[in-house]
Amino acid sequence: MDLNKVALEKHAEWRGKLSIESKATITNKGELSIAYTPGVAAPCLEIEKDEDLAYVYTGKGNTVAVITDGTAVLGLGDIGPSAAMPVMEGKCALFKTFAGVDAVPILIDSKDPDEIVKTVQLISKSFGGINLEDISAPRCFEIEQRLVETCDIPVFHDDQHGTAIIATAGILNAIKVSGRTPGDLRVVINGAGAAGISIAKMLMRFHIGDIILVDINGTVYEGAPSNNPEQEKMAKITNKDNLKGDLAEAMKGADIFIGVSKPNLVTQDMVRSMAKDPIVFAMANPVPEIMPDLAKEAGAYVVGTGRSDFPNQVNNVMAFPGIFRGALDCRAKRITEDMKEAAARAIAEAVPDDELSPEYVLPDGFNPIVVKRVAAAVRDAWEKGEGAK
Amino acid sequence: MDLNKVALEKHAEWRGKLSIESKATITNKGELSIAYTPGVAAPCLEIEKDEDLAYVYTGKGNTVAVITDGTAVLGLGDIGPSAAMPVMEGKCALFKTFAGVDAVPILIDSKDPDEIVKTVQLISKSFGGINLEDISAPRCFEIEQRLVETCDIPVFHDDQHGTAIIATAGILNAIKVSGRTPGDLRVVINGAGAAGISIAKMLMRFHIGDIILVDINGTVYEGAPSNNPEQEKMAKITNKDNLKGDLAEAMKGADIFIGVSKPNLVTQDMVRSMAKDPIVFAMANPVPEIMPDLAKEAGAYVVGTGRSDFPNQVNNVMAFPGIFRGALDCRAKRITEDMKEAAARAIAEAVPDDELSPEYVLPDGFNPIVVKRVAAAVRDAWEKGEGAK
Repeated sequence: MDLNKVALEKHAEWRGKLSIESKATITNKGELSIAYTPGVAAPCLEIEKDEDLAYVYTGKGNTVAVITDGTAVLGLGDIGPSAAMPVMEGKCALFKTFAGVDAVPILIDSKDPDEIVKTVQLISKSFGGINLEDISAPRCFEIEQRLVETCDIPVFHDDQHGTAIIATAGILNAIKVSGRTPGDLRVVINGAGAAGISIAKMLMRFHIGDIILVDINGTVYEGAPSNNPEQEKMAKITNKDNLKGDLAEAMKGADIFIGVSKPNLVTQDMVRSMAKDPIVFAMANPVPEIMPDLAKEAGAYVVGTGRSDFPNQVNNVMAFPGIFRGALDCRAKRITEDMKEAAARAIAEAVPDDELSPEYVLPDGFNPIVVKRVAAAVRDAWEKGEGAK
Repeated sequence: MDLNKVALEKHAEWRGKLSIESKATITNKGELSIAYTPGVAAPCLEIEKDEDLAYVYTGKGNTVAVITDGTAVLGLGDIGPSAAMPVMEGKCALFKTFAGVDAVPILIDSKDPDEIVKTVQLISKSFGGINLEDISAPRCFEIEQRLVETCDIPVFHDDQHGTAIIATAGILNAIKVSGRTPGDLRVVINGAGAAGISIAKMLMRFHIGDIILVDINGTVYEGAPSNNPEQEKMAKITNKDNLKGDLAEAMKGADIFIGVSKPNLVTQDMVRSMAKDPIVFAMANPVPEIMPDLAKEAGAYVVGTGRSDFPNQVNNVMAFPGIFRGALDCRAKRITEDMKEAAARAIAEAVPDDELSPEYVLPDGFNPIVVKRVAAAVRDAWEKGEGAK
């Protein structure tokens, strides 16, 4: 089967993966007078008096916008907003399929963070949540932060946090199954963009000994001339020994490798240079930093990838549907760090202790229990945390 | 039945009148790999090469945004964007029900025309058309015009043109059934906002003798101190004798009264002061400028209203679904004046000649033939007009 050919044929058949249906039956003037004018004036006036009633009389509370500027689409890069639409529609289809969330794809035809922030702010009342998608680093950090600070609904950049949450869940179980202690471990993350930095931040909440971010310029250390502002911030709290050098250098003696970078950057020798029984999460798509069989052969104890044809798939359908489901259900105003941590724990715990093995550190993304548990954990974290204040 | 109570109950039950469904079945990793990554990369790359392929591989070509700032909602006025949502969702429900169009409600949280125009421009690539809704005059004129000039998809302010198209259809048939000649007629339009001005412009295409716009300050004449810029423009091409005075004054001897204003502004004496067998379209909602029975008693030959419980309802479901269906089907870049005129003619002609009567000058909005004929006429007008250039 030629996947590209099938995908093109199916997309041409669908002509859009979404259909917007009316829940209201409108087949005569009586029904029209309730769903539309004049009856519709009653809920309008109620919401005018109390804006919170939008959650009762409209779909706001179950609707998420999936918003991109098309600058960092999949592994394809800056292909522009129009070309990003098939991914956005796919994401929206997953929102409905996995979590019953109504999701609307919105393309923004600008790369200017000010314009993007302003546009999202001005349309945000239409939605109960904002899922930012495929926006390139480091712009994505600023855009997300400004929106989180100014919108009163959850704003979540999935490329940063979704991958981080699931990778963290897998790493937690890999640490457990290999009998290690987080404080003793050194983690190398290759890729110091949106996903890599978010993974580093999340792992730090679990008290990992040290983390070294690496990108095309080598390790991220304080004062490195190639650092962008976000990397410089990270340099202050990671890479404790201020190690300089390339990826091969960084990997020597490391316990865990996490790749969110490019295909085939990691050799078997590099895996052999790691600590005993290393953990390798090679998540470049569609071709990982090192193929699982090669990593295993070189001594890796646990291997994870982004691929569905190998064990331990970091599949982002495990996180975003449940996270938004939970956040919408409790009407959280934002997605806090506690909520993200709770989601990671819920995903890790979806693998039963007695089934945990090097080949099974992450649950099957299609297991409906995952969304349910993530949603419950996220809701609980909000209600016991910021939501209780 | 208490309509408000029922409407509130139904809206609370729906919790949003729209549901966004996935056309793609995604129940296993194989299906996921086609609708989402990695297969989705193929249509993305095709669209990157040729942006027009968005009409093949995404839903763009069947999707319309219904956009408001909440400043002129129904007869309720400036109730704000959130409170406008029930109307926007209703409109979107009608788009799907009547014409199979996927419509997305978007609220813009700004009253500044520059911000509104910029926001719509920046998100416009997500859609195949833009339906502006319930934006107050005179801002709506500028906003629509600037968007028509800068977007390469149809932009249509339904409050201006939808009502105008249907009212014009009704007036054309009323003129016909009363055996009159357009060039002999004087029309008084009460309400010189978005709808009134658009009706005047449309009627001029049918060579009406003279038109007088009236608002709360009286007749619109050249140099009237209360004129806004759009009204001053209209003053130059209407009210040939530069009549000054109030509505009662303007109606004396007029053949046709068209109201897009407020309840009960027209008395029986005012109808009696009109020419013989006058035509009265009293479209204020929910209570017309004069009730049909009173107008009839005072001598009106044809009476139309916005209400479903009287003959000749100016029901906007007759126009916008078919207009966008036609425009999307031929991928028109805009809605031209020819297309609007064609829509009005198609609606008028949907009443068979041998059934035409003073009680039947407008078709039933629920008759599916109306959308089909309007769509065909609109498509034809584009393809023979600007689309052929």
